[in-house]
Amino acid sequence: MGRESEKRGSLRLRAAGDNLGFALGACGKREGRERRGVLTLPHGRVETPAFIFCATRGAIKGVGVKDLRSLGVEIILGNTYHLMVRPGEEVVEQSGGLQKFTGWGGPMLTDSGGFQIFSLGFGSVTGEIKGQRHNKNSLIVKKDEEGVVFRSHLDGKRLGLTPERSIEIQRSLGSDIILVLDECTPYHVDKRYTELSMELSHRWALRSYEEFCRGESARESRGLCRQGLYGIVQGGVYEDLRLRSVDFVNGLPFFGYAVGGCLGGSREEMREVVDFSCEGLQEEKPRHLLGIGDIESIFHGVRCGIDTFDCVSPTRIGRHGWALVKGGERRLNMSNARFRDDQEVMSPWCDGECCRGGYSRAYIHHLLRVGESLGGILLTYHNIRFMTGLMEAIRKGIESGRLRDVEREWLEG
Amino acid sequence: MGRESEKRGSLRLRAAGDNLGFALGACGKREGRERRGVLTLPHGRVETPAFIFCATRGAIKGVGVKDLRSLGVEIILGNTYHLMVRPGEEVVEQSGGLQKFTGWGGPMLTDSGGFQIFSLGFGSVTGEIKGQRHNKNSLIVKKDEEGVVFRSHLDGKRLGLTPERSIEIQRSLGSDIILVLDECTPYHVDKRYTELSMELSHRWALRSYEEFCRGESARESRGLCRQGLYGIVQGGVYEDLRLRSVDFVNGLPFFGYAVGGCLGGSREEMREVVDFSCEGLQEEKPRHLLGIGDIESIFHGVRCGIDTFDCVSPTRIGRHGWALVKGGERRLNMSNARFRDDQEVMSPWCDGECCRGGYSRAYIHHLLRVGESLGGILLTYHNIRFMTGLMEAIRKGIESGRLRDVEREWLEG
Repeated sequence: MGRESEKRGSLRLRAAGDNLGFALGACGKREGRERRGVLTLPHGRVETPAFIFCATRGAIKGVGVKDLRSLGVEIILGNTYHLMVRPGEEVVEQSGGLQKFTGWGGPMLTDSGGFQIFSLGFGSVTGEIKGQRHNKNSLIVKKDEEGVVFRSHLDGKRLGLTPERSIEIQRSLGSDIILVLDECTPYHVDKRYTELSMELSHRWALRSYEEFCRGESARESRGLCRQGLYGIVQGGVYEDLRLRSVDFVNGLPFFGYAVGGCLGGSREEMREVVDFSCEGLQEEKPRHLLGIGDIESIFHGVRCGIDTFDCVSPTRIGRHGWALVKGGERRLNMSNARFRDDQEVMSPWCDGECCRGGYSRAYIHHLLRVGESLGGILLTYHNIRFMTGLMEAIRKGIESGRLRDVEREWLEG
Repeated sequence: MGRESEKRGSLRLRAAGDNLGFALGACGKREGRERRGVLTLPHGRVETPAFIFCATRGAIKGVGVKDLRSLGVEIILGNTYHLMVRPGEEVVEQSGGLQKFTGWGGPMLTDSGGFQIFSLGFGSVTGEIKGQRHNKNSLIVKKDEEGVVFRSHLDGKRLGLTPERSIEIQRSLGSDIILVLDECTPYHVDKRYTELSMELSHRWALRSYEEFCRGESARESRGLCRQGLYGIVQGGVYEDLRLRSVDFVNGLPFFGYAVGGCLGGSREEMREVVDFSCEGLQEEKPRHLLGIGDIESIFHGVRCGIDTFDCVSPTRIGRHGWALVKGGERRLNMSNARFRDDQEVMSPWCDGECCRGGYSRAYIHHLLRVGESLGGILLTYHNIRFMTGLMEAIRKGIESGRLRDVEREWLEG
């Protein structure tokens, strides 16, 4: 009992800095609809545009929180699906929420859990699900109006997710930004399926919102931080559906929006979709683009008025031996023999631990060749600093009205 | 050409702090033959007694050099066998030596390469050789007076090691302390075999020493740092052989000594061997005990007058989920379900990143359970700080004449 109240006490303490807001700042001459903002969240501020790094199972693979901070990271995300399966949201809640559980302490976002379940269900396993050993297509047992029943990828245990349950779990996880449950519409379906799927997602969004409101007062009465709920713009690649979805999310008092669902089969299609998804959204609310992290698309998204991005790519390619670099090559495969005797640091201009720590490309190459985990860790550091450096440069570019110059520097080197 | 001379230039610069020495300091009332010393090496000072962490293939698994420094590490070791196989000593030399290649920049020791080759050859594969895929007993092709011919565990390539070649490789690697080549005598051989093996090792030690002297002037003429050569005390578990070996190493002007070869089949036997191996060694020279890292044996070794220890154990058990702790349990298996809801930090008294970084035992347990590499990395941090903290406490205990109290605190908790 003593221990229980002690835990509650620590939860209460953390509510002291409780606030939630988004403010847009001054920009230079604009090229498109780019914005310079600040997200104020219960666990800290996030300067936007920002990149959100993926701590899928509650950790950025191989990187501790002190290093994250020194690499300029301001916000990370956890995946509700992974965390509900293990350790279970009750363990996280008992630890004082995801921010405290992970030691990170700063702003966090959680998704609804839907993306992993549906992408597993349709067999398009994202690399997120690295530990999966079961049949790719067997996870979804049933999907209906109520929600989805699926099997855990870890032990096959039958689990259910409804809009209400997703919000409930995210409430226990306690992240700063949470998402409504949506159906992750696949690409190879027709417009009619996409429309029905969008309408289902809208009904689920409304139920998510209602559950969110019920929970907010419960959180408040327990002295817990507020959370910001994001609605999701659906509608696949169809402009008319996207516009309907924009109208729908504008009609509910969400804290912010995410652009989700199917974004198209090519980079060009994706950009169009982002463009017409963003155009009608209320200006004063933050917008997140789900799962996109390549540099060109980030510049495009920023010009469409996207405020935050997330993608596993920078950290994943890092631990698999690839370094993000400025210029046309975009990324270098550091396992390549050409780096065997390369005494240069990864990027001389970079102030990250990988480039300032005295590690040469030859050393990183060696570590990768002999399978020393430090090689992938140093490249993860590098790619994180690359992305936070890119976003810093983009923010400055927006402030000074020189975004085009920033783009040229980072894409052409 | 320009680049080549630039490299040479950087090598020359590093010789500025070139010096080599060992000084014994004041002790309190002594319980045995324990000593408090300082090793002065070309790449920095090492307070002794000290623990040397194993960067087998040029990296402490999962830990960058900034973290090593902040965890109180003063000296690490690289394995000549691993480094000659990959990346090859010429790559390390071109990078300006092992200290620069690894980014560590501080004091380093390399072994002769013999231990890995012989332990592989006799089939008692140490966990060092994690990547080994070939037949355990196939590596040694030939062993004779000249040296040993073996196959690389990576690609089966035929390689040779003689006393001269080992010194030559260690000269290229450029570590501060290097070791003579010896035969690693197995345990299950008779006294006659042990005696012949010891005599062979003595002849190899002499040849190592002669090659070392030839090389020192070559290093000097290139403006490179000096290196300290350690002789190795052999003789297995036999006191008379050990005493002969002590006489032998005392007779050559080695910079220091290592106690090596077979130390016995039990902890008790090992302690006796360490005891009579150390007794006759010249007081003023540093002594290293090869491959021993359990806490009881460290206290025993310190009382025998050992100055430095090395062992893969603290870092290896860390990355496999075990935390070193004070007291009777010695180590905790953090994967155990009892830590699922444990909100305490690993060790409240510890100032290491794992314990001060806001990570609970429950979080570390979670990381291990889902296979997140950060779990093993945090425990590696923890065990490194545990060992550097232990050695700091031992040094203070020697200074104040209260070594027994320190031992009680760390072994009984």
